[in-house]
Formats: sequence, C-alpha cells, structure tokens
Amino acid sequence: MTPYWRVVLASRPRGAVTPENFRLETAQVPALQDGELLVRNHYLSLDPYMRGRMSAGKSYAAAQALDETMIGGTVGEVVASRHAGYAVGDTVVGVLGWTEMAVSDGTGLRKVDGGKLPLSAYLGAVGMPGMAAWYGLNKIIAPKAGETVVVSAASGAVGSVVGQLARLQGCRVVGIAGGPDKCAYVVDELGFDACIDYKAGRLDADLAAATPDGVDGIFENVGGAVLDAALARTNAFGRVALCGMIGGFGGADMAINNAKLLLINRLTLQGFIVTEHMDLWQQGLAQLADLVAGGQVKYRESVAQGLASAPAAFIGLLQGFNFGKQLVKLI
Amino acid sequence: MTPYWRVVLASRPRGAVTPENFRLETAQVPALQDGELLVRNHYLSLDPYMRGRMSAGKSYAAAQALDETMIGGTVGEVVASRHAGYAVGDTVVGVLGWTEMAVSDGTGLRKVDGGKLPLSAYLGAVGMPGMAAWYGLNKIIAPKAGETVVVSAASGAVGSVVGQLARLQGCRVVGIAGGPDKCAYVVDELGFDACIDYKAGRLDADLAAATPDGVDGIFENVGGAVLDAALARTNAFGRVALCGMIGGFGGADMAINNAKLLLINRLTLQGFIVTEHMDLWQQGLAQLADLVAGGQVKYRESVAQGLASAPAAFIGLLQGFNFGKQLVKLI
Repeated sequence: MTPYWRVVLASRPRGAVTPENFRLETAQVPALQDGELLVRNHYLSLDPYMRGRMSAGKSYAAAQALDETMIGGTVGEVVASRHAGYAVGDTVVGVLGWTEMAVSDGTGLRKVDGGKLPLSAYLGAVGMPGMAAWYGLNKIIAPKAGETVVVSAASGAVGSVVGQLARLQGCRVVGIAGGPDKCAYVVDELGFDACIDYKAGRLDADLAAATPDGVDGIFENVGGAVLDAALARTNAFGRVALCGMIGGFGGADMAINNAKLLLINRLTLQGFIVTEHMDLWQQGLAQLADLVAGGQVKYRESVAQGLASAPAAFIGLLQGFNFGKQLVKLI
Repeated sequence: MTPYWRVVLASRPRGAVTPENFRLETAQVPALQDGELLVRNHYLSLDPYMRGRMSAGKSYAAAQALDETMIGGTVGEVVASRHAGYAVGDTVVGVLGWTEMAVSDGTGLRKVDGGKLPLSAYLGAVGMPGMAAWYGLNKIIAPKAGETVVVSAASGAVGSVVGQLARLQGCRVVGIAGGPDKCAYVVDELGFDACIDYKAGRLDADLAAATPDGVDGIFENVGGAVLDAALARTNAFGRVALCGMIGGFGGADMAINNAKLLLINRLTLQGFIVTEHMDLWQQGLAQLADLVAGGQVKYRESVAQGLASAPAAFIGLLQGFNFGKQLVKLI
C-alpha cells in the first residue's frame, strides 16, 4: 500500500475563498479491481469554475461534496492497469481531482500523445480552456475577417487562445487584462492589436479608443463593469459569448447595467459550458494541437510546485495573481 | 387643395413624454406627380418603439426629426392615384405617420384584402406587432410542446399573440400584466394558463408558483424587475427573445441583476427588431391572418377617436393605460 496526498473540501466559502476551506490529507492506494487503472498525476489544472462548485447554491453542476477530493482536471501517467484499454506508460488526461494518485475505470479519461507536446499543454491551450476559447469564438461569436473582438481576462488560459484564434481569422483583437505586465504580454507576445489595463481606471475611455470601429464580438470571462464597458462599444448584431464571470466570485455585483444595448444593438448573448459540447472536442483539440505545435498559438503558465501549494495558488487565481494558465506540478 | 391634420414632433422629451412634445397642425394635399398616390388613413397604430425615436440618442434607427410628421404605422384607402400599381379604393398598410392623409410613391406600402379582416387587424395581430410575436417566438424561443413560456405585457398587441401562438404549439404559457382586469382577460379570453399581476407586489413569488417546472422561454417586452423575475425561474438552455424594454421609457433602471443566471443556466438572449426580418413577413402574416380569421388568435383594441387624441393615447400607452392594441381611428 502506497500513501499519497490529496486535497479535500473542508468547508464552503462565505464570500472569498480562504485556505481553511481546504484540507490536505493522506490516503492509501487500494488494490486495483478488474477494469481499473492507477494514474500518477503530473499536473493539476486550477480553473475558475471550481469556485462555483465550492458553493452549495444552484448552478449548472452539482456542488463539490464536503470531505471529498476537490474536482480538477489532470494529466498523468498510467502506473498500473487491469483495464484492457490502458497500459502502463500511457499518458491520460482526465478529471481526477486535486490528488497525486487516482484509481479510475476509464470514465472521462482521454489518451493523448505524450511525445508531441509538453504534458501541461493538455490542461491549457490543448485542453478544456482551449476548447472553451475555440467553442465560444467559433460557435457563438463566429467572427468575420475585419470584425473587432474584445476578450476579457486576455492573458489567461482561455482569453489568450481566444485572441490568437481571432487574429488568425483576420479580426482586430482587443484584450482586457489587469496590470501593465499582462497587457504588454498580450500585445507583444500573443499579438493582440491592443490591450486595456482595467486597473488603470479608464476602462471605458481606453476601450473606446482601442475600438474605433466598434465591437462585433465579446468573449466574456469577467462580467460586471468589464462586460458593461464592452457592451457600450457594440455594433448592431454583435455577439457575446459568456464563458465566465470571475469578477463575481468575490461577491461583487455582476449586474448588466447596459442591458438596453442588448435590444438597441440587437445583440445575441449566449452562456455556455464547454463540457456540454463534447461532440466538438476531437475536431477542436486537433486544430489546437496543430496550432500550438506550429507556434501559431502560444501560451504561458504559472506553475505552483507540489499539491500542498494548490489552495494558495487557487486563491491567487481568483484574485488575478496568476499570469497565464495556472497549474500545480505534482511530480 | 384639401386641408388635413397631422401631428409633428415639437420637442424631445426630457424623461416622461408630455403633450407639449407634440403639435397638431394643418397641411394641404399637394397635386400628385406621376408615380404618386394619395392615401386617406383610417387607423393609426401607436407603439412603444415611437418613444425611442423621439429621443436624439443612439438607437437602432434614426431619431424622429423635429417639426416633421411623427412616424407611425397606418392602414387606409387609396383616394387618388397616378401610380400604376395602385387604384382608387385599394386598402394599403404602410408607415405614413400621424396624419389623416399622405402622399406616397408606394415605398413601404403593402396592399391587403380589405374584405377579409377588419382593417385595424393589419396594425395589430396581422401587422407589425403580430410579426414581432411570430418572429420572437418561432425564431428565437422556438419552444417545444410541454415547455413553459413567460410573456410580459401579456395583454398587449405583441404579448397577446405570443401567448396564443405558444399555446397552439402545446406550451404552458404564463403572462405578466398590470392589474386584475388585464390578467383576467389574458387567462379567460386569451387562454393563457396563468397571468401574474406585477402590480400586486408579489412578482417573484407569484411567478414561481405559476411555473412549477421552471421557464424555458421568455418573451420580454418590459425589462428590469420583470425580466429579472423571469430569469430567476429559467431552466438550463432557456431562450430569451428581447423585443422591448417599455419599462425603461420613463427613465427607470433597466439593469439585468440576475445576469449570473445567463451563464449558470446557459441561456441564449437575443434582441431583435422585426422590421429587419422582412423576408419572413409574407409567411408569418399569412399564418396570422388565417389564425385570426379562424378565431384561434383573438385580439383586443383600445381605440382613441380622432388624430387630436393621439398624443394623450400615446402617453397612456407608455404608462400602461391601454388595454390591448392601441389605435387611433381617423375616419
């Protein structure tokens, strides 16, 4: 029997998430049954959706159970198998949680080519965040060349891919991010046409200056004042892909004050969850893998070391301290 | 030369519309040029969209010019013609404005069968309001039998048609209207399953009780607290057809406070203007004419007598004093 570490939800947050909401504990690897395999996780993905799961309120998914392993995407290596479809050494992406090791019956696992890309890419630009970008941009915004697309949380795992894909489709792309470092990265490294630092306090004016032809598509990860500022610039028949409202996780008011513009500009706004569109993942991930391998889609990672650092890294993610895709390296 | 009466926009409203914003004046019918016809209007339609045109601010349409005839839909009779396509006695629907007589070159005119339905129907259930209902319900909400649809301003020209069409498609239909008389009409005469009186002060609780299976479609004419109440009841993948925000014309805050539900319930919200979908009017109006002629779609009218009564009738419409489609009878 091998001991390993995992993180469970100890309590539900009241307002902001605190370290006390989590508990690090040891567990023992059980003996495998027929049809099971054992995965040693190399990376854990930290993502904003986890905040929603920590609360008991109505949401699109069941709440994370107390005292059970926190939900989370993982990439790792099969280290033992009594499952016909998996062999020791296979690289697998899944949702095995905040844990160093996990037993699986294969449900929700996906084998990937561990040699083509760095393993961590399968949790970012070629994983769930990349697919969220791909789906919202291509299936909701569906921009034409020459249109202007605004992306919030532009330096993040989703936003960075949205902007690069939109640029490849011939759009003018304007990011919104927090701080001059992130904005410089978004423009200089990712190739966005402009990036607005919302922390500079001139969001409306800066966004207006950066979108002289108005806004045709909004990929929204933040909500609240950030979304209102983008709505204020919309052209007729603009499309809003509503992927996240990370700005509201701390309890901030996420009201849409510019709601009249939804009517006046005949906008279409659609909320979505990318895991409800699995039929498109094979197509989308294949495109994203090629673009990442070819260097046309770049990404950046914030990597915390060791499972014990996950709670603090997650709290930092919710506060925008990460810079690029937030990961925890487990091995 | 024959004198006739018309109403022009005298000044733009600051907040609520007042009678002083309008001016009744006489004009002379000019001699017809080749290609022109003269229409004597029988009915003028009063509609909420006119409020938007009275302001100079950015909207989906150009502002109504000062000192010119107020925009408005009309149905009338050709009384003189030098146009090859129109003969004296033809019944024509158009947008000839708040005026007893008008010269036209045929642009935007539509000949209708003056014998099949009462003329006023072409300004209501078989006109622009009916088409707004038809488009928003069929092309945005697209309900399945058994789903629940909520309609605000349910006794109005648009809402009444929405609900009856949705009932014919096998939906549970819940209206929202102002006052017990309107609600009784919506249930007893129009056949809605339920109607909530928002003036009773229990909007959220009453709507929850009337939608035990949640809400799949919202046809929104009001906005603000009425829309928030309906959003609070939405099921996953609900659709919101945003047709109007009449609640905001007096300057009320139209913010969407339940914006998080757009994401949590993966809703699609679409603002629309029915005059931008003229390609569907022939199909939709033919269906509506048959349903009205067959008694499956009923309607009710508030008819003001004479052009001089139009300003007061319009102000009453904005305040919800009308009961059914607001018209002005001109002859």
